[in-house]
Amino acid sequence: MSRKSRSASLTQVSEWNDGNVRRKEDFLAAEEPLEIRIGESPLSVTMRTPGHDLELAAGFLFTEGLIQRREQIFALESISADTKANRDNVVRVELDPAAAPDFEKMRRHFFAASSCGMCGKASIESVRVRALQSPNPDFQLGADVLLALPGALRSAQDVFQRTGGLHAAALFDSRGTLQTLREDIGRHNAVDKVIGWALLEQRVPLSDLVLLVSGRGGFEIVQKAIVAGLPVVASLSAPSSLAVQLARELRLTLVGFLRDRRFVIYAGEERILN
Amino acid sequence: MSRKSRSASLTQVSEWNDGNVRRKEDFLAAEEPLEIRIGESPLSVTMRTPGHDLELAAGFLFTEGLIQRREQIFALESISADTKANRDNVVRVELDPAAAPDFEKMRRHFFAASSCGMCGKASIESVRVRALQSPNPDFQLGADVLLALPGALRSAQDVFQRTGGLHAAALFDSRGTLQTLREDIGRHNAVDKVIGWALLEQRVPLSDLVLLVSGRGGFEIVQKAIVAGLPVVASLSAPSSLAVQLARELRLTLVGFLRDRRFVIYAGEERILN
Repeated sequence: MSRKSRSASLTQVSEWNDGNVRRKEDFLAAEEPLEIRIGESPLSVTMRTPGHDLELAAGFLFTEGLIQRREQIFALESISADTKANRDNVVRVELDPAAAPDFEKMRRHFFAASSCGMCGKASIESVRVRALQSPNPDFQLGADVLLALPGALRSAQDVFQRTGGLHAAALFDSRGTLQTLREDIGRHNAVDKVIGWALLEQRVPLSDLVLLVSGRGGFEIVQKAIVAGLPVVASLSAPSSLAVQLARELRLTLVGFLRDRRFVIYAGEERILN
Repeated sequence: MSRKSRSASLTQVSEWNDGNVRRKEDFLAAEEPLEIRIGESPLSVTMRTPGHDLELAAGFLFTEGLIQRREQIFALESISADTKANRDNVVRVELDPAAAPDFEKMRRHFFAASSCGMCGKASIESVRVRALQSPNPDFQLGADVLLALPGALRSAQDVFQRTGGLHAAALFDSRGTLQTLREDIGRHNAVDKVIGWALLEQRVPLSDLVLLVSGRGGFEIVQKAIVAGLPVVASLSAPSSLAVQLARELRLTLVGFLRDRRFVIYAGEERILN
């Protein structure tokens, strides 16, 4: 099955337009649960847009701190738990036994989820439990390059224009060349997919790349970027107070409202060249 | 401390505008962790915009199926875990012992989070584990009323205009009269806050109200609405495939792209009067 057919689906809807109602076909952004299993133990279920599931699983394990290196993944495979639907909705991961998690401990350590209301992590103290390191201080980026990124993102997005329902995350180098782009109905999933891609391609730490996200730059996006070693995070929308605070503490460059000929620098201004 | 001062904060930023850089003050949407405790046991931590924390906690417990009625909450209070910051970031709940959860079981039963990558729920089979009931079949709403809701939402939002970073959820009656509005950096939190308000006001099931959300209408938004008995969910943006599927199965009316003089009906068209 192609990625296209999984990431969007057609359905009959009624469009009401100034008093006129007509039946038409509409594309919907696909949302399906994906279960990540470590060996035979279920670890988590996330609602995601199908496609690049192995990258999503690898990126999730990496940005949540369960693994630190590509080599700790001994095996990674999509399997189907729902034979009736004939869809791959489980990713099974074999980890280096030295990295394999203590499940009960891990459930309590998951980070909080800014845009849902739930997580398995059980205390505020563990939100920033890991020792995070400041990203590459020598990376710099021209303002002109930054300004060109949203256009490059839009022209590379194929699903978004059809459904209006997907978030995008993309990696660019300092010349503005697109390295990879992933889309998902969840902002965090899109970021995990691009970082998972980089992990599987043996490209982490991403010390000379920029992460562009289509949505808001929240705390967890900045946290995931720092884990991956990214020096710059840019978003088309607003960051949150805690994202700005974390970016300033860790000296990551955080840009928001990147639109038209304007952007706002919230942290790490020294990396942006005018 | 007023709600205003907690839900947005001022910070110094650099605005780059067509080659000119200037320092200015900017409002940021506040994002802080909130821990929900059942008695002395930490249940979950969510990143939320401070304000209406008791409603958020009550709504979360209700829409996630831990409680079914207001009466099962024996006590509900904000306490401070961080005395240095002098901020309330813990809500402690005393539940009817008959409703108090089995913590290990519950951690595994949390619903998946569409816009993050984590949850404590441990298998796909439990995503729709609860017996959900179809909402009120007799509720109806004029298209003209529906069209007026986004304007009513915007004029009632006070924080959004300053930060551009908050999601809103609001309840309206069939004449389009606003019942309540809540904002949060997380879409699901905003919904939990309005439903929590209704629960604490003894107004559930909400069988004659409409839920309007500023963001996307995803699976979990529809699921929460069904738990609260809401017959109509409208959003300014796109729904997901699974949200549409659930709305059709449960006969909830789901409207998307409610903008200007147009909207799209994805499910439950019989409740919308032209």
